[in-house]
Amino acid sequence: MTRVRGPAEESPAPELIAAGFALEVADAPLLHRGLGLADLAHLLDLRARKVVKDEAVQRLLRATLEALEIPAEQFPYDPEYGEVYNCRERWYVQRLGDDAGWLHAGRPRREATRIALRLVLRRQVAELAADAAEFAAVVAESAGRQLETWMPDQTYLQQAQPSTFGHYVLSFAYPALRDADRLLAGLDWVNLSPGGAGCVNGSRLLVDRDHVAALLGFGGVIEHTRDAMWQLDGLVSLLASATSLVASQSKLAEDLEIWASEEFDFVDLAGPYTRASVLMPQKRNPYAVAIVRGAGGVLIGRLSGFLAVAKTPSARSDNLIFAYGEVPRALDLAGRVTRLMSGVVATLEVHPDRMWEVLLGGFSQATDLAEFVMESCDVDYRTAYLVVGRAVRSAGRQGLRGVDLTGELLDAAATEQLGRPLGLSGRDLSAVLDPRAIVRTRVASGGAAPGVVREMAARCRAEARARSDRAADATQRIERAEFALVTKAEEVANGSATR
Amino acid sequence: MTRVRGPAEESPAPELIAAGFALEVADAPLLHRGLGLADLAHLLDLRARKVVKDEAVQRLLRATLEALEIPAEQFPYDPEYGEVYNCRERWYVQRLGDDAGWLHAGRPRREATRIALRLVLRRQVAELAADAAEFAAVVAESAGRQLETWMPDQTYLQQAQPSTFGHYVLSFAYPALRDADRLLAGLDWVNLSPGGAGCVNGSRLLVDRDHVAALLGFGGVIEHTRDAMWQLDGLVSLLASATSLVASQSKLAEDLEIWASEEFDFVDLAGPYTRASVLMPQKRNPYAVAIVRGAGGVLIGRLSGFLAVAKTPSARSDNLIFAYGEVPRALDLAGRVTRLMSGVVATLEVHPDRMWEVLLGGFSQATDLAEFVMESCDVDYRTAYLVVGRAVRSAGRQGLRGVDLTGELLDAAATEQLGRPLGLSGRDLSAVLDPRAIVRTRVASGGAAPGVVREMAARCRAEARARSDRAADATQRIERAEFALVTKAEEVANGSATR
Amino acid sequence: MTRVRGPAEESPAPELIAAGFALEVADAPLLHRGLGLADLAHLLDLRARKVVKDEAVQRLLRATLEALEIPAEQFPYDPEYGEVYNCRERWYVQRLGDDAGWLHAGRPRREATRIALRLVLRRQVAELAADAAEFAAVVAESAGRQLETWMPDQTYLQQAQPSTFGHYVLSFAYPALRDADRLLAGLDWVNLSPGGAGCVNGSRLLVDRDHVAALLGFGGVIEHTRDAMWQLDGLVSLLASATSLVASQSKLAEDLEIWASEEFDFVDLAGPYTRASVLMPQKRNPYAVAIVRGAGGVLIGRLSGFLAVAKTPSARSDNLIFAYGEVPRALDLAGRVTRLMSGVVATLEVHPDRMWEVLLGGFSQATDLAEFVMESCDVDYRTAYLVVGRAVRSAGRQGLRGVDLTGELLDAAATEQLGRPLGLSGRDLSAVLDPRAIVRTRVASGGAAPGVVREMAARCRAEARARSDRAADATQRIERAEFALVTKAEEVANGSATR
Amino acid sequence: MTRVRGPAEESPAPELIAAGFALEVADAPLLHRGLGLADLAHLLDLRARKVVKDEAVQRLLRATLEALEIPAEQFPYDPEYGEVYNCRERWYVQRLGDDAGWLHAGRPRREATRIALRLVLRRQVAELAADAAEFAAVVAESAGRQLETWMPDQTYLQQAQPSTFGHYVLSFAYPALRDADRLLAGLDWVNLSPGGAGCVNGSRLLVDRDHVAALLGFGGVIEHTRDAMWQLDGLVSLLASATSLVASQSKLAEDLEIWASEEFDFVDLAGPYTRASVLMPQKRNPYAVAIVRGAGGVLIGRLSGFLAVAKTPSARSDNLIFAYGEVPRALDLAGRVTRLMSGVVATLEVHPDRMWEVLLGGFSQATDLAEFVMESCDVDYRTAYLVVGRAVRSAGRQGLRGVDLTGELLDAAATEQLGRPLGLSGRDLSAVLDPRAIVRTRVASGGAAPGVVREMAARCRAEARARSDRAADATQRIERAEFALVTKAEEVANGSATR
Repeated sequence: MTRVRGPAEESPAPELIAAGFALEVADAPLLHRGLGLADLAHLLDLRARKVVKDEAVQRLLRATLEALEIPAEQFPYDPEYGEVYNCRERWYVQRLGDDAGWLHAGRPRREATRIALRLVLRRQVAELAADAAEFAAVVAESAGRQLETWMPDQTYLQQAQPSTFGHYVLSFAYPALRDADRLLAGLDWVNLSPGGAGCVNGSRLLVDRDHVAALLGFGGVIEHTRDAMWQLDGLVSLLASATSLVASQSKLAEDLEIWASEEFDFVDLAGPYTRASVLMPQKRNPYAVAIVRGAGGVLIGRLSGFLAVAKTPSARSDNLIFAYGEVPRALDLAGRVTRLMSGVVATLEVHPDRMWEVLLGGFSQATDLAEFVMESCDVDYRTAYLVVGRAVRSAGRQGLRGVDLTGELLDAAATEQLGRPLGLSGRDLSAVLDPRAIVRTRVASGGAAPGVVREMAARCRAEARARSDRAADATQRIERAEFALVTKAEEVANGSATR
Repeated sequence: MTRVRGPAEESPAPELIAAGFALEVADAPLLHRGLGLADLAHLLDLRARKVVKDEAVQRLLRATLEALEIPAEQFPYDPEYGEVYNCRERWYVQRLGDDAGWLHAGRPRREATRIALRLVLRRQVAELAADAAEFAAVVAESAGRQLETWMPDQTYLQQAQPSTFGHYVLSFAYPALRDADRLLAGLDWVNLSPGGAGCVNGSRLLVDRDHVAALLGFGGVIEHTRDAMWQLDGLVSLLASATSLVASQSKLAEDLEIWASEEFDFVDLAGPYTRASVLMPQKRNPYAVAIVRGAGGVLIGRLSGFLAVAKTPSARSDNLIFAYGEVPRALDLAGRVTRLMSGVVATLEVHPDRMWEVLLGGFSQATDLAEFVMESCDVDYRTAYLVVGRAVRSAGRQGLRGVDLTGELLDAAATEQLGRPLGLSGRDLSAVLDPRAIVRTRVASGGAAPGVVREMAARCRAEARARSDRAADATQRIERAEFALVTKAEEVANGSATR
Repeated sequence: MTRVRGPAEESPAPELIAAGFALEVADAPLLHRGLGLADLAHLLDLRARKVVKDEAVQRLLRATLEALEIPAEQFPYDPEYGEVYNCRERWYVQRLGDDAGWLHAGRPRREATRIALRLVLRRQVAELAADAAEFAAVVAESAGRQLETWMPDQTYLQQAQPSTFGHYVLSFAYPALRDADRLLAGLDWVNLSPGGAGCVNGSRLLVDRDHVAALLGFGGVIEHTRDAMWQLDGLVSLLASATSLVASQSKLAEDLEIWASEEFDFVDLAGPYTRASVLMPQKRNPYAVAIVRGAGGVLIGRLSGFLAVAKTPSARSDNLIFAYGEVPRALDLAGRVTRLMSGVVATLEVHPDRMWEVLLGGFSQATDLAEFVMESCDVDYRTAYLVVGRAVRSAGRQGLRGVDLTGELLDAAATEQLGRPLGLSGRDLSAVLDPRAIVRTRVASGGAAPGVVREMAARCRAEARARSDRAADATQRIERAEFALVTKAEEVANGSATR
Repeated sequence: MTRVRGPAEESPAPELIAAGFALEVADAPLLHRGLGLADLAHLLDLRARKVVKDEAVQRLLRATLEALEIPAEQFPYDPEYGEVYNCRERWYVQRLGDDAGWLHAGRPRREATRIALRLVLRRQVAELAADAAEFAAVVAESAGRQLETWMPDQTYLQQAQPSTFGHYVLSFAYPALRDADRLLAGLDWVNLSPGGAGCVNGSRLLVDRDHVAALLGFGGVIEHTRDAMWQLDGLVSLLASATSLVASQSKLAEDLEIWASEEFDFVDLAGPYTRASVLMPQKRNPYAVAIVRGAGGVLIGRLSGFLAVAKTPSARSDNLIFAYGEVPRALDLAGRVTRLMSGVVATLEVHPDRMWEVLLGGFSQATDLAEFVMESCDVDYRTAYLVVGRAVRSAGRQGLRGVDLTGELLDAAATEQLGRPLGLSGRDLSAVLDPRAIVRTRVASGGAAPGVVREMAARCRAEARARSDRAADATQRIERAEFALVTKAEEVANGSATR
């Protein structure tokens, strides 16, 4: 039996339309503009290489410019006619007849779509890096306003040591800055041109790959053509950075959810970030933080799902077919929640009085007290710890607070623990026990002392600004290049261009 | 400072609209009909409990019936007005003024939406179980047609033992049947009513929870109200079954992709399941199988993402907010690809001549030959294996095939391996080496002998039919119940109902 | 160039030993006993089929029985000699010389290992189902003790409605019971025999597959041999059920972590489930709940990782090579944390006074109050909700609590909202506002009223017991069968068996 | 009721030991050395700050140096005594009594363990970057040897265009180089010191955080103390890069598995990377590539599982408790398989004759032929494509190959398609149809022409070397620093150090 060669002569099966083409066409709004730009650049390159006659190029450019003006939703993308590129081809043929056929010279469908994906992603990545930097800046500003908002910091959600809300919140600026850096590194990768890669190994027709790259405003050409068409590490890295960015925010969101409870009452979300119950009149639900956390979970799935999609042999179309929608949608979600979280932090109501009340009511001074005992009484830390632990337990039973501890209580605990007092009776422990004084000892690099936090916050703001600027520059360069491409195409289309 | 109580008086923040409400409103088309049905049942229940006066109930029913007729895309769902339920509330208020307010008596937003989700899912799950059963039936029919399509079965993609395409392909019917069973078990869970659960602990107004359940055609009530509202194990199980179903198909798809290569040439996808390249005129790409495999990867991410979303404390709204879209969309994708894969299998072109050529050209008889040597020559299996292995290596070097092996070759190998021949020279090995004869020895339960496969295939078809019938019954019951609910609502709305 | 056939003559590469064999040998402790039992059954079957002479069978049985007695850690499993089965083969050869070679007659390595995996899993699954049932029982007992432990139930961690700790905690029994059911269904699948499946299509030597199944105490034979060897849906389902089981517990754990904070102070973990800080003397960290939650995350990864491993063509060895360790280890982790969580719940200190204080201090009566207004004042629910919401906001500003609300306050709010009072001034609202009275109205099925919860808890205990019994029966049947197999093997080995 | 404060006085529950401590103690071999080094540095810092007297420091240093010499497996790590740090503390107390207690001054358990984790990871990351670079180098060398190994490159596993094995395989060097870069960027993050961070906000005792960082050879200090202790973005990024690295190799592995089939016969794995069947004498299974692919799946799960673990509020111990084992084990697995894959590529047997045979037998010239028709006959590409497609289909039916196409065939096709011939009859198409000539036209940047590939391969080798050097430098600096720390500690311990 002889194998059938070449395209099928039958129509696609309805199940294929429903499962394949419909799925691809759902991504048309994402790719529409990018495909138009890719077509413009390809046509200008065909013209430069004299592969296609000027008149046909002009007609094709005019059609492409027209398509660019049609909103994706109104363009005849329809799974009945195949996937996105097929629908476009059909549109060109209806308009231009055979001239439409020149568009495919030297370029497979996937090259056009890969370019379109990168055009979408480079804007998204620049914006997401800017969103991440903005979040870091907002956090740093919040920290700068809360340098003396005393608060018990917690581990295991148990009061650990005295700190400030400023120190706490500032810890979220750093991962955002690092993820912004990762995204900017990813931008360098995504903003490269696969143009001229052909199917897998280049094209005989179009040998100056820099031309298309320059027309599209890419930072350069991806050298190896098969790498350019098929390798996915850069997409994995972008998804991982976006997921990481939201994962850090999810931690802050969940902290705030807990602290916004009536029982904690440390913070309240500003009204515009809450929502009402339709049943319960007293409710004021911290809706925004639930959205951030849920999006964090969704993104974990988007990343692992994309990695699973990518787990195939090489040069398999499903790797990219599913990337066209999954990756931009994931980045879009990451951007929305990052901007939401910036809004939450910028407007957050912090309750210093309640935090102070809780801080005073607890025993978060215990570590510093044990260090004081160690230093004053010449006992090792473990011994001091055991004495203080015993004193705390005893004070707790009596309904006392950490600030109520006395030398007498410690000596009593020492007598039980060690068989002898430590000579602390009568000592004034107020400086040791004052949570504010304790925080003020944290003057080492990165500590919670107000002055230290003030300077860190200032540096974070500057770091955030630097990243915002880089992202904004990138966005501007992209916009200028795309504008120049359209302008050039218009000039050629209406015959006003010089070669 | 006193904590602010009750709903916020400010408008929602634009970032909240973009990240929260917009995300929820994107699921409106999924939930629209279910919310309408949930409202009808709730209104009939409020009327039965005499919580709301008949006239108001009638007006509300009329509005709800009207809303049911409006396609979701045309209903004024708009994130500016909140999430889906808010948008509906606004629509009711615009129509009915204060009467709209009765709708919320005794029922939180989330109860309505949970019901809507289950109404969507029960249909989807029944359909997906039917799709799975249909896939099993198609596979079994294919197996029944290929009982003597001799083929080397492979492990590590290396020829292992002689078999048939029928035996091979039938192995995909079983996991589909089991996943159909899991889905049908899941249907029993999903087709239960959370109605009357209130926010978390029930409602004082609506104490007969069976009424709403019966109106909506649910199989019963989920007893514990907090379990009904918040536990997610059933959704996890549905997603896992759907993912498993597609994961098995992905294996078949990837096998077919490999076997459809020019080099294997074992099969060809029918034309309607392929697609052309726009660049390469000779191409006829097995597009359908790439879609199935890619969808398999996407679903792995949907499952792990949903589990990550669910990793929160209990009664957190993000758990369900993100479920409303993620779960139905995942099940929809699973259904589409299952139907696609059924089409692929039903129309697959199998190339028996090429399979036979390859089978004859290899050495997949080696195991049976070694067993023959063991039995004939009174040597242990390992020894027989080593002798045959040596003979195969030697035959391979001479360009011989498995069927070309002779007693002389085996004796020569034995002499090398054991220092003595095994007395096989001159023996007629043709029956031992004939791949067809080997397959015919696989008469034990589940083996590859044609008669065994024929009977298994017949049983699989019967099992598939049984599951299709169960699923179809469920779908019919659901449709009848929903029709009856609408009819009852119409009667009450126009006053023709008796109480 | 002629292709090389047959096993390689060179030694394995060091990188292959480090990446492949070492990885497989790390699973030897899991598979050791199961491989021994599989060998016993295979030998008895070879004897029954007269494939191997009695004397050789006896020697092989004696060696196998000896191997069974050697702890896996002391058996010479060593990656230098290949994977687990190779190491065993080497041990047999060293002991028995050529007789060792009979062991491989009619059975590939993978059949032995598949059987061993199922022997491990069937015990684990029965135990995990029992653990899940025990957890449900412990939860139900806790609920039964806390029927009148009044508590504000929460959504978004905001006080929602009055409830009890008993009603709350009981909501975790149900998913555990359902996951126990899923595991028991999975047990039916896992406790089936792939024996006699050969490589892919059966064996000519061993045609009575029931014999091996019966010897190993399996519930039956997996019919289709390729299905038996290669399909993974059952493993996916087991992992999904185990993950789901822990995911539900993780929610409870995270609730308890929050409630064990000093600020909530609703509960305390019993001392044996906490751990100390080595730095902070006052700390008493709820370590157990962090372990449960973390394990929940790990299991999400084990499930998605296994699905990703399974995303290959069919009959690929990595699917099972990685399953041998991943699946049993995941189930083991799930069992450990389930037992831990049972301990946490059984010993949990609940603080009813603090819960009552918080309940009294809030406004969780608002829904019931709005329903009262609706019913008493003939206004729709939305209107009543707005009036109550306004009253709550106003009361909150004055530092009043929900129980302090009065008819006068409501009338004032109504006047503001509606332009008229509702005639509530002077009404005694104490019954409407008493949280205990509100809970007592939740008498509908599944509600929070103490009597309703008492009966649900009793039913849950009974349901849990039924599942424990099923699991225990399964475990006993398994143990008896394995004991009988060893006994039979001993009899044959020492010549005391009749055929 | 008063809340209990301070450490529990009861023993840990057996379930806690089994689920919590046992799980942590299983990671002791990973952390043992790092904890010893962290202790040395902490002790030297306590001495420098004069917190502890010299004599006690000396005793503690001597004990720590002794512990460093004890292999982790022999050190008394035992879950009965708590997690890893507790076991060490117990060992110190047994040896030194109260003096052991000084060790905890100013440092929580988690600071020690965080440092230990980073000490493990920095070596692993440097090595993994080196492994990635080595893989790229091996690939580039292979490419350099296969510049004229003509091969049909494939998409959808269908022959696409003529290419070479050299061009194909080189496409795997690039993602490895990029992932090496990501790992080296990750190394900069991981090689920073959290020392002196205290619990969350610094310590009053140890204010010169640079000292500990320098002693441990870290590249610097992580400034913000809470960021240093708790943020996880860097670990996510490391796992993502390792997963991406193996994901790319998995593609190559799966390509090779397919190409090593008898039907393709493009390549053979060298014997040391295969394994035999114990049943089937003819088998020579490409075991190594199955391991690589399976490990790729496992790593997807490790990444998604860790992200799920990390989905908690901030400062939750499970985030790191589970990281201690999960992250190093994942990186270790990535390293093993990367080295394995380097071995596979370095020793791979490539079959140029078979590749050429297949290339000649197919129609991968069709694109170039259509381009020729377009250029020669002045028709648009789509028209040329349709003509060639028709000619290919017709040639296929006649059993002809691509190289057998003639001008006559094309004209016949044109007549059918366009109603007119294109004047190609009689034209010599041999240069257009020769696959070698086609490849030689791919001279644009990154194309498949032999000279282009040669230069790319040379550059890749240089790039790989640059990364290897960076990684080796890092490893050397680390080893020197650790050696210097031990030396310094020894000097202080035996009194030979100057302050």
